[in-house]
Order: sequence, then C-alpha cells, then structure tokens
Amino acid sequence: MKIGILGGGQLGRMLALAGYPLGLEFIILDPSPEACAGHLAEHLCADYADPAALARFCAHAQRVTFEFENVPVSIADRIASSLPLYPGAAALRASQDRLTEKNLFKELGIDVTPFRRVDSAQDLRDAVEVLGLPAILKSRRMGYDGKGQILLRGEQDLDGAWKKLGGQPLILEAWVNFRREISCLAVRAKNGATAFYPVVENQHRDGILRISRPRPDDSLQQMAERLTQRVLERLEYVGVLAFEFFDAGGHLLANEIAPRVHNSGHWSIEGAHCSQFENHLRAVSGLPLGPTTLRGYSAMVNFIGTKPDNERVLALPYAHLHDYDKKPKPSRKIGHATVLASEPALLETYVASLLSLIPETSQR
Amino acid sequence: MKIGILGGGQLGRMLALAGYPLGLEFIILDPSPEACAGHLAEHLCADYADPAALARFCAHAQRVTFEFENVPVSIADRIASSLPLYPGAAALRASQDRLTEKNLFKELGIDVTPFRRVDSAQDLRDAVEVLGLPAILKSRRMGYDGKGQILLRGEQDLDGAWKKLGGQPLILEAWVNFRREISCLAVRAKNGATAFYPVVENQHRDGILRISRPRPDDSLQQMAERLTQRVLERLEYVGVLAFEFFDAGGHLLANEIAPRVHNSGHWSIEGAHCSQFENHLRAVSGLPLGPTTLRGYSAMVNFIGTKPDNERVLALPYAHLHDYDKKPKPSRKIGHATVLASEPALLETYVASLLSLIPETSQR
Repeated sequence: MKIGILGGGQLGRMLALAGYPLGLEFIILDPSPEACAGHLAEHLCADYADPAALARFCAHAQRVTFEFENVPVSIADRIASSLPLYPGAAALRASQDRLTEKNLFKELGIDVTPFRRVDSAQDLRDAVEVLGLPAILKSRRMGYDGKGQILLRGEQDLDGAWKKLGGQPLILEAWVNFRREISCLAVRAKNGATAFYPVVENQHRDGILRISRPRPDDSLQQMAERLTQRVLERLEYVGVLAFEFFDAGGHLLANEIAPRVHNSGHWSIEGAHCSQFENHLRAVSGLPLGPTTLRGYSAMVNFIGTKPDNERVLALPYAHLHDYDKKPKPSRKIGHATVLASEPALLETYVASLLSLIPETSQR
Repeated sequence: MKIGILGGGQLGRMLALAGYPLGLEFIILDPSPEACAGHLAEHLCADYADPAALARFCAHAQRVTFEFENVPVSIADRIASSLPLYPGAAALRASQDRLTEKNLFKELGIDVTPFRRVDSAQDLRDAVEVLGLPAILKSRRMGYDGKGQILLRGEQDLDGAWKKLGGQPLILEAWVNFRREISCLAVRAKNGATAFYPVVENQHRDGILRISRPRPDDSLQQMAERLTQRVLERLEYVGVLAFEFFDAGGHLLANEIAPRVHNSGHWSIEGAHCSQFENHLRAVSGLPLGPTTLRGYSAMVNFIGTKPDNERVLALPYAHLHDYDKKPKPSRKIGHATVLASEPALLETYVASLLSLIPETSQR
C-alpha cells in the first residue's frame, strides 16, 4: 500500500521511516525542494493546490494523510472525494481555527481558558475589559510554535499588538496560571479502537517545545484520556491526535489539538513499544493498533536553530539521535535526541548532559 | 554525508532506515530494478561493473559500504582507489573464498572443521578417504543460504555431487556434530575501538537461517569475542562483522565470516540499544560506536518464501514486523519479525505464537 503524505518535513520523514518496515510505500507532496522527507520517498515538489501534482499524487497513493494541520480544507475535500483521507477534513476544520476549536471543546464539555473573539480594535478593548490582563492575543489561523501570538501584559501593549496582528481573525485568551503543560497522544482506528500513550509533560521556551517527558502513572492520565476520547469520537478520527492541556492544579484546561503526529510524541520511537509514527500509519492503513506502553523511562530534547555535533550526542550511550537533515535557521527544529534510562533519577542526569552539549547561542 | 551502498536488498534497506536519523544520506547501486532498498534512496540500477554507473556512484558518495560479500574485488579496489570503502577489500578477499577464509582462521589460531581442497574428481575421492563420511562438499565461492552445498552421506552420493558442483573450485568439509550454531556480531571503528553483541544462537532449516536468539551471559561469549577480535584486527576491519561458529560442546569451531550486517543480528533493531545497522553506519562514517547491550529478551523469526498476513503479526503486541516489500519466491527471505519479552520463558511462548502464523506451505 502506498501512502500519500501532504508535507515532507521531519514528521513526514519519521512517518516514512516507521512505515517501510510495515511494507508501506510513500509519496510526498511538498512545495519545498528541500523537504527533508524527500530523500526517502518519491517527492512531488509542487504547491498543494497544483492540479497536475495533486492528480498524480492521488493516482499513486491508496490512502492519504498529512503532517501539518494547515492543509487547505478545499484540498482535503478534493482528495477525500477520491481516496480515504485520514484523519479527515473534519479534523482539519476543527483544528485550523482557534475559535472553532474552542467552541468544539465547549460543546464536548471540555473546559477551556476564557476567551473572546476579536475582529476589531474595539473588540480587543472589550475583550480585555472582560478577561482582564495579562492575556494573550492570538491569530485564529496558521499559528504554530508561538507564532502569531502576543502576550499583553498591560494596557500599553494593546496598540502595538493590534498593529502587528490586526486585520485577520483573532482571539483573546485569558492568562491562566498553570502548573505544567501536558499532552495526551492518542490513536484511533477506523473500527473505533483507541489507544493512549502515557501523558507527556512539555517544557517550552519562547513558545517552542523544548523537552518532553512521558509520565507513567500520572494522576491526570484518566482525565486526559476521557477528554481526548470525546474529541476522537466527535471527529470520527482515524490516526494519531495530540491534545495539549494546561494542568491548572489537578484540573485540565484544553489548549489545542493537533490532528497529526506531534513533537511531544517523538520519545515514543525508542520509549514506547509502538511509536506514534507507526501507530498513525497502522490506523491510516487499517492495521491493528500497536501497544502504547513504555519501554523504560525516556525524555526528548529538541534541537532548535542549532544542534550539538552529532558525534558528541552519539558518544552518550543513552542518547538516540534524530538529525532531520535540515539547514539550521533560528527557531527551526532541526533535530532531536531521546534519552533512555532504567530509572527516573538517572533520566534527569542524562537530560542535563544532553542539554549541556547544545551550543550556547541557542540557550540565550 | 552520503553513503554509497553496493547492493539494495533488505540489508541495504535496513541500513538506510537506521542511517537517516544520523543525518546520513544514501545512494544505492544494484542491478535489480526491484531492489527493495531502492524506494528509500537514490537507486542506480546498473551492473556493478558498469563504468558510468560506478563513476556516478563514486561521485555522489563520500563513503562506500556493501551489503553482500560477493562484490567483485576488482570493483572494490577501483572504488577504494578514490573513496574510503569499509569494510575494505581485504575483508572481501578473505570471505569470498572458503579456502582463503579457512586458511586465515588457521593462521590466526582459530579452530576450523577439518577440510580439503577439491579441484577434481580424484581430489574428492582422496578427501573423502582422509575426512570420512558424512562430509559436506561446498563451492568455494558465491555460496549463501545453503546454496552450492551438498551433504555426502555415503559413497553413493559422490558421483552425483561431483556432477552437480564439479568444474569450479570446491572444498570438502568434515561433518561435525555440533550442539548449536552461534554467531558473534562485532563492530570495529577506524580507531580500533570494538564492541560485541551478545552471542546469538541460530536455528536453520534447509540451510537457511530461521530463528535467531541473542543469549545474554552465554558461557562462550568471551571465547567468541576473543576469536572475532583476531579477525577484526588482522583485516583492519571497519564496520559490522558476523562470525559464525559451531559450538562443539563448549569449544568453538569457526564456520564462516560475513563482512557485513547479518541476518542473525536483525533482532538488534529492537533488542539492543544500538542496532547492528546503526553501528555499522557509525563505524563507516567515523562516528562513535553505540552500545551493544540488550533491551530485554528478544528473538527473530525469518519469513522465508512466504509470510503471515501483516495484520496478524501486528496484532501480536510483542511483535515487530519487518516486511521487506519483496515478491515472495521459494527460499527467499521476504521479511522477519522480532518478538520482545521481559523474561526468557515468555519469549518462547511468543516465538511459538509467531511461528504458528506462518502459512503451512513454508513449514514443510
């Protein structure tokens, strides 16, 4: 079976690496000639909307999936008219717009941080009055890795923020004091079977994920699974979904969903019996789901903008390197490493050693 | 760094899968348009001796390795004149001819089964007189998976065997009663560092490897390492080498070496901290060697000629499927699965369940 992947970045790359052993083949559609998944599969280098490329893509693939949630819904619909597209256009619709997404959460009885729709400077002032400050002004669409977000600390920040983000659909979110950010990685098969990885604790820097640690036996595991299950069912979801939450002192507030394999699940390649990438492909291609159980303790560290010498990472006997073969650029994820340990205390020592190898420039 | 691989079968395929996360790229030279590694790297589909293809191959690769030991030495020499070729032509020379190989073992003080060179029908009769029967007549070159071998049970088998194999350089090997066949997988870096996987117990059927089980704390581990080390050093070896031995009751007799990643090391993908494929590439590309230690108990089962439905294998929560995406053909290795267990007793139950899924036709 040949799987078409929309997008050929590191997620597409790791999907292909996980999928070949299952006997799957891949074709990738990505407008960038540098798409790093392009080395390991047929790469159609064209715009997603290019009719000839899309026709060829659909002619070669038996199933289609995507590695980023900003695939235009019109294109998803076009593909879905001739081929199974997993997860479907409904998942894209729900996740592409923060307002739609939050309304979905509310409908499903999932708590969200207070928010207001902002379409004008007046809306913004009104929203601030209701939600108070600090608050975060966010674009409703196309945001990722902290892009399209501005923290409003005080009244004096409003004009600047509006100048920067105004003119597109926005949302203002109240500031919440959360203890930690966690994500729940789930996979759902077409027959409705679901499986959940242990919740992952995520540490960000400048809005970009930096460290993820799966937490076995976390007290919020069941709650996270229950809430994620609601979303999976509503969207008749097929594949891996990542649901990010704020842990507001034992109570979960929904942040956002990503209808795809997710950075906070990269540790699963070595740290789980079946990785998120393999499980996504199993779901997409109609194979039984694999075990989401842990293999020891693990943590993942992202390499953002810069990375240590591969040689130094590989000299750490507990580290597993994933070099995406991408040109370094500020804020760009160019690789990650997962460290494995037989006990939690060791794990933190290993994480510290790995972090110490990252060049200072990126530590800021 | 781009690695050129001579040969694009399943070993090349698993090398590429292990190498992309290290940031490596690949180019494959293989005359078969169906080479199963061809999907995941640039594939030059040409004869190994094709001067234009070889020139292009060498122009694109920074290092060259091979996935089968029958690469013509003349071609290896040509490549090595312009690029680092690991393991080198010396390893090919030593392993391509059973006579050279056995003489090397003897030189290094490694015991071998008694043997005689056979170039004529008279040689064969003389050899049988010295070694007795049963004995095995083998072609000196190009043998693998039991091909080019005939077991002589009695005098009546001599004429038929000579008719079938005569006319090429042969060797007659005495029959040894061995307790089991084991292999020692080793890796050596250019700086002389070496690492050894736990010895592997191998079970064959009709001359083809069927099941491999790494054996932690095997009483012959040290002896196997010591003997393998001698070969590694003599050949100034770089990369993974597999050394097959007969365990003749606590005493090791050399069978043969394979200067490459080896079927009896496939379990290491999930069963070791660094797989044989990754370690081979680390050695070839000058990176530090990775840990050869076990991750739990594991065993590998080959799918030969036929395989179970992928769906059924993937429904076993302890199984890891490796479908080579090759057309089934009698005696052809078309995939394998590795089972993982937390304790040895469980492992055997899992192996039995996996074996029960293989279609009867291949069980004979």
